[in-house]
Amino acid sequence: MSEDQAKKDKAAIVLFSGELDKALAAFNIATTAAAMGMDVTIFFTFWGLNVIRKESGGTPPAGWMERMLGLLNRGGANRLPLSKFHMLGLGTWMMKKLMRQRRMPALPEMIQLAKQLGVRFVACTTSLGVIGLSEDSLIPEVDAVAGAATFVGEAREAKMSLFI
Amino acid sequence: MSEDQAKKDKAAIVLFSGELDKALAAFNIATTAAAMGMDVTIFFTFWGLNVIRKESGGTPPAGWMERMLGLLNRGGANRLPLSKFHMLGLGTWMMKKLMRQRRMPALPEMIQLAKQLGVRFVACTTSLGVIGLSEDSLIPEVDAVAGAATFVGEAREAKMSLFI
Amino acid sequence: MSEDQAKKDKAAIVLFSGELDKALAAFNIATTAAAMGMDVTIFFTFWGLNVIRKESGGTPPAGWMERMLGLLNRGGANRLPLSKFHMLGLGTWMMKKLMRQRRMPALPEMIQLAKQLGVRFVACTTSLGVIGLSEDSLIPEVDAVAGAATFVGEAREAKMSLFI
Repeated sequence: MSEDQAKKDKAAIVLFSGELDKALAAFNIATTAAAMGMDVTIFFTFWGLNVIRKESGGTPPAGWMERMLGLLNRGGANRLPLSKFHMLGLGTWMMKKLMRQRRMPALPEMIQLAKQLGVRFVACTTSLGVIGLSEDSLIPEVDAVAGAATFVGEAREAKMSLFI
Repeated sequence: MSEDQAKKDKAAIVLFSGELDKALAAFNIATTAAAMGMDVTIFFTFWGLNVIRKESGGTPPAGWMERMLGLLNRGGANRLPLSKFHMLGLGTWMMKKLMRQRRMPALPEMIQLAKQLGVRFVACTTSLGVIGLSEDSLIPEVDAVAGAATFVGEAREAKMSLFI
Repeated sequence: MSEDQAKKDKAAIVLFSGELDKALAAFNIATTAAAMGMDVTIFFTFWGLNVIRKESGGTPPAGWMERMLGLLNRGGANRLPLSKFHMLGLGTWMMKKLMRQRRMPALPEMIQLAKQLGVRFVACTTSLGVIGLSEDSLIPEVDAVAGAATFVGEAREAKMSLFI
């Protein structure tokens, strides 16, 4: 980290949820904070890992339980459901369409914007194990795979820490 | 803002959820913090906007998708479901009744108490667009409609920031 | 509190959710922060009270509504469902099995670890009333029963406050 970055105000965000609406909220706050000059890290944990998963590829899991969880728990920023009114996809499709009509960026665009603004993406090691995902199933935008100590270390110095 | 307020410890709360239990938790923390001398702002975003929606009235939305979402997503502090055990309204009715028996304030009363204690209500501009709500569908207690930069600006200076 | 503790960096965590995955996230962060020398308090509120409930025992509630809620809302760290893919218990059973295979501590073990590391457990008075639970239905590891003012007092001085 440069000396300049070390002096910036920090923001540490845990994204635990794998739902489209919560991911949008997290990225809206993260990109805004980065644009306002903050040094932002998002820690993707549990279902939040779905946001930074490739739609396909990655080493298939070894055990039958991991494979079964993998079939249920499909990831990829384009495939996240809403936390309410998903309605087998209809509600989620409508909300995405409304956002396009209003020329709002979709989640994959916000992920790219976040990277351009220097937001760091950290995937939680422990959660990868619990959900049965391999590291190579994550998108290349992920900067690091680390444990809770990395989050606590950042959050402790941060001006803003949020659990979403 | 007066010089006095500028020196007060700040608290910045995002209320993302539109569920009764989470709204009660948010208002319990907000009113307590305000009573303890903090300068508190609640940012209502996504389903949290339902907490500060009028039960009826407001400009009806223009498109069919907005109207359909509006039918599904009914707002108003009296009509919020529980996040668990809503049970078509039975569980929610029981919990409200238990609260009355124990002489606890209901959510609409806590909203009024929060205003009396000087808690600021800010509605998220972006979310209004995504959900397809007009500003005049919000209750008059709302102080401002603003974007994520307003939240980040407050949270960055705050002693306590929470995402609920 | 000793003079030494008073100087430690504080962390204040609200555990609102009664789901296994969120409880694991909360305890992972809490134990990590405590191991890193922070002074950590977890405030158990609403469904989060289920994490610190005995599996049986405690004064049975007086009213029929409290008894009905008690039947629906079963507590105990071993009985919490996942927030997603609970699937009548199958998904939750699979995730617990995956965690055992990977030699990760289960929630009851993390609760004990947290206590050994000096994490304070505070149960929310108001929530006990709303859900209709008596104090003696909580596990003995609970240090105190207190209101929102206790949380706000801690969070205001804390380096990290999270709502989970």
